[in-house]
Amino acid sequence: MTNGHHSDLPASSATDAQDASETYQRFLTDLFGAIAYGELSAFERMSSDARFSPTLHDRATLGRLAVHEYAHFEVICTRLTAMGVDPEEAMRPFQASVDAFHDRTRPADWYESLMKFYVTDAISDDFYQAVASWLDAETNSLIQGLKATEQPGEILQGRLKVALADDPRLASRLALWGRRLVGEALTQAQRVVVERAFPGSLLEGQGREAVDAEIKALIAQLTRNHSKRMSLLGLTA
Amino acid sequence: MTNGHHSDLPASSATDAQDASETYQRFLTDLFGAIAYGELSAFERMSSDARFSPTLHDRATLGRLAVHEYAHFEVICTRLTAMGVDPEEAMRPFQASVDAFHDRTRPADWYESLMKFYVTDAISDDFYQAVASWLDAETNSLIQGLKATEQPGEILQGRLKVALADDPRLASRLALWGRRLVGEALTQAQRVVVERAFPGSLLEGQGREAVDAEIKALIAQLTRNHSKRMSLLGLTA
Repeated sequence: MTNGHHSDLPASSATDAQDASETYQRFLTDLFGAIAYGELSAFERMSSDARFSPTLHDRATLGRLAVHEYAHFEVICTRLTAMGVDPEEAMRPFQASVDAFHDRTRPADWYESLMKFYVTDAISDDFYQAVASWLDAETNSLIQGLKATEQPGEILQGRLKVALADDPRLASRLALWGRRLVGEALTQAQRVVVERAFPGSLLEGQGREAVDAEIKALIAQLTRNHSKRMSLLGLTA
Repeated sequence: MTNGHHSDLPASSATDAQDASETYQRFLTDLFGAIAYGELSAFERMSSDARFSPTLHDRATLGRLAVHEYAHFEVICTRLTAMGVDPEEAMRPFQASVDAFHDRTRPADWYESLMKFYVTDAISDDFYQAVASWLDAETNSLIQGLKATEQPGEILQGRLKVALADDPRLASRLALWGRRLVGEALTQAQRVVVERAFPGSLLEGQGREAVDAEIKALIAQLTRNHSKRMSLLGLTA
């Protein structure tokens, strides 16, 4: 990315380059804003729900996962600040939509809450990492780096397996809940980031159709990954 | 503290020393269990309440304070594990009583929640630090070290001052709430730790009356500190 200053290009091309750079910066601001608000919300919801865990061990474990979400939130805020952007300004456009997502997916109990984090955290990780792979190396490495060394997915998966073994009736309820969650999460992914913060210009030189195809392929990939994760629990996606 | 093994003392004294050591270890287990469960609960309540903050900035700030509580919880759990004690076993005896304390002091809104952390966090810090000053150097330094470099009291105090300036009617409500909280917190301090985990043997060579006097002096000190903190907000304790 050039910023158009000190350019040997004719004035109009320099302006084009500057416009492209500004569009890219706005895209990054939106992307980081969406990630940051998602992490802050996940932190609050996860730590609130931790309180209803059946054991002290579960409370401590969920608490630790929540603290990791907060750490990710701080990493993204630091980057936004370094870009000269107020993190709160960047998050604000996504607040209503993320809150609405959580309102539509209120867990009925602790197991549904566990399942919600298992399903939606993984989808949003997959999604942001796919988007990041199309971006500049610095942004890409920041977003790839958010995958904590301690894999929350594995911890949640292990705990859900124990719960499913303890109460076989839970399986049909959680399978149904998982389908509901993946539907809402994919709608959310398309709405929040694709519509708002995904300018076609990112996939340079491609037409509208090629961009649509790319997004379709991404959604298909997210769906496949989700099905695999459900299978790991012995559930049908 | 000797553990009685390899001792040159006659058998009965060695047994006495071992008994004293075991009593002390039990006391430490109780003390750390009470602190750990208090921190875990504070983490969960604070991060849950953060969601109802009037601004994103407040949410992020309260979230960070909550994360500090979780870090303290982990420090204490690590120490318990090093002592060969299961942190969950150590916390369990205090669960009902701490939960009941929180049930009795449910904040009616976000400002009462802020006030609750301001008042009760400070009282429990003061209390545990006073108790720690009577203990072995290692325990004492561990507990004194829990005071985060970032003083949560100052952050909460600053935020409460702004709220009180914005809405003068808040003052009488928060003053009343502060009185309720200090009463509950002092009852709690006396009940959870004094009755259960405070063997007179700690204050060696002192009689029952001297121990009672020491506890009375401590409670008076906690009350004075609380009054000072209320004055800093312009409120009467």
